[in-house]
Amino acid sequence: MTNAEVLKRLTETIENRKGGDADSSYTAKLLSRGVKKIAQKVGEEGVETAIAAVSEDDAALLGEGADLLYHLMVLLAARDLTIDDVLATLADREGLSGIAEKASRDD
Amino acid sequence: MTNAEVLKRLTETIENRKGGDADSSYTAKLLSRGVKKIAQKVGEEGVETAIAAVSEDDAALLGEGADLLYHLMVLLAARDLTIDDVLATLADREGLSGIAEKASRDD
Amino acid sequence: MTNAEVLKRLTETIENRKGGDADSSYTAKLLSRGVKKIAQKVGEEGVETAIAAVSEDDAALLGEGADLLYHLMVLLAARDLTIDDVLATLADREGLSGIAEKASRDD
Amino acid sequence: MTNAEVLKRLTETIENRKGGDADSSYTAKLLSRGVKKIAQKVGEEGVETAIAAVSEDDAALLGEGADLLYHLMVLLAARDLTIDDVLATLADREGLSGIAEKASRDD
Repeated sequence: MTNAEVLKRLTETIENRKGGDADSSYTAKLLSRGVKKIAQKVGEEGVETAIAAVSEDDAALLGEGADLLYHLMVLLAARDLTIDDVLATLADREGLSGIAEKASRDD
Repeated sequence: MTNAEVLKRLTETIENRKGGDADSSYTAKLLSRGVKKIAQKVGEEGVETAIAAVSEDDAALLGEGADLLYHLMVLLAARDLTIDDVLATLADREGLSGIAEKASRDD
Repeated sequence: MTNAEVLKRLTETIENRKGGDADSSYTAKLLSRGVKKIAQKVGEEGVETAIAAVSEDDAALLGEGADLLYHLMVLLAARDLTIDDVLATLADREGLSGIAEKASRDD
Repeated sequence: MTNAEVLKRLTETIENRKGGDADSSYTAKLLSRGVKKIAQKVGEEGVETAIAAVSEDDAALLGEGADLLYHLMVLLAARDLTIDDVLATLADREGLSGIAEKASRDD
């Protein structure tokens, strides 16, 4: 399965879980708990990803990175957005100019 | 540009920045500062993404989500991994069974 | 200066910065930017504290821990609360029973 | 109980839990899991505190702020440091000059 297919399938799966049975699906349960809870998970997975990287544990980094990307996709779905919108945002920053600009503010 | 192309181009761009001029590229500068600093940025972008979502600010959510995905990709590069490895990890969790299992531990 | 005096002085200083000159005081500037920005700083300092601890860098841990506590106090002030209210909350959890209870939900 | 007494009692309680029975005490269990796990909790509580504040939920903010301070104290104990050391660090920054200096780097 290609990257694009993985993202597409995950997006569809998450979309299909909206209003689904919270007892049989983690995604449906998460969506039913609302944006605040899902946002909290994204923040937590960001922390766990950071710690896995600093700990030089590549298996953990891939696992936490996967959790982070997945929960980001659920959070976007909860706001009726998708990872495609995020990728379009990144593409619009031609040459990553937006990120370069951010550097002067944040570093 | 398709999703797959955006991810591929970003992965290449980041890879090409390794050892690059930290003065002219934010990505090269970030990579030169090491895993700890990049990991910190991923954690911070996770927090900013969470707050944008709770604030119901969709433009900010897309911008912060883009920052989060981008910094995750730089962090992976700093550990000689790629977003492809993360997507493969997600694909391996057939039917998201791994995430479902995680639910019983974490919620 | 005792612990109690440090907390009392910091609480007073932060309170006095409300409505103060954002150009001459970091605290006044932070308060002027509102709860969302201050909350983001607390989340970020939590991440930085975590990474300093995992990196076994005690000087950084104390510095980041100080930043975390300070920004928590500013966040409380922005919501018209104080660290005294947080300490009262901890004291009310006699024998830390509340935290023990939390363990069964979170771990 | 005064602030100073709450901090002193909590510090002693946490210190006494080192090497204690992980089955009967949340703190002993947390300490037994090591710095990485405790650091992760501090990062997560930072995120939860930030979200409670943005959500304008003062009861949640006090509860999450209490969790954050408590887990920070456990993290310090795991590195053989205390909240006293953090408060001494804050006091040493006379007039918060250290934090003011940080502002020019971070904002």
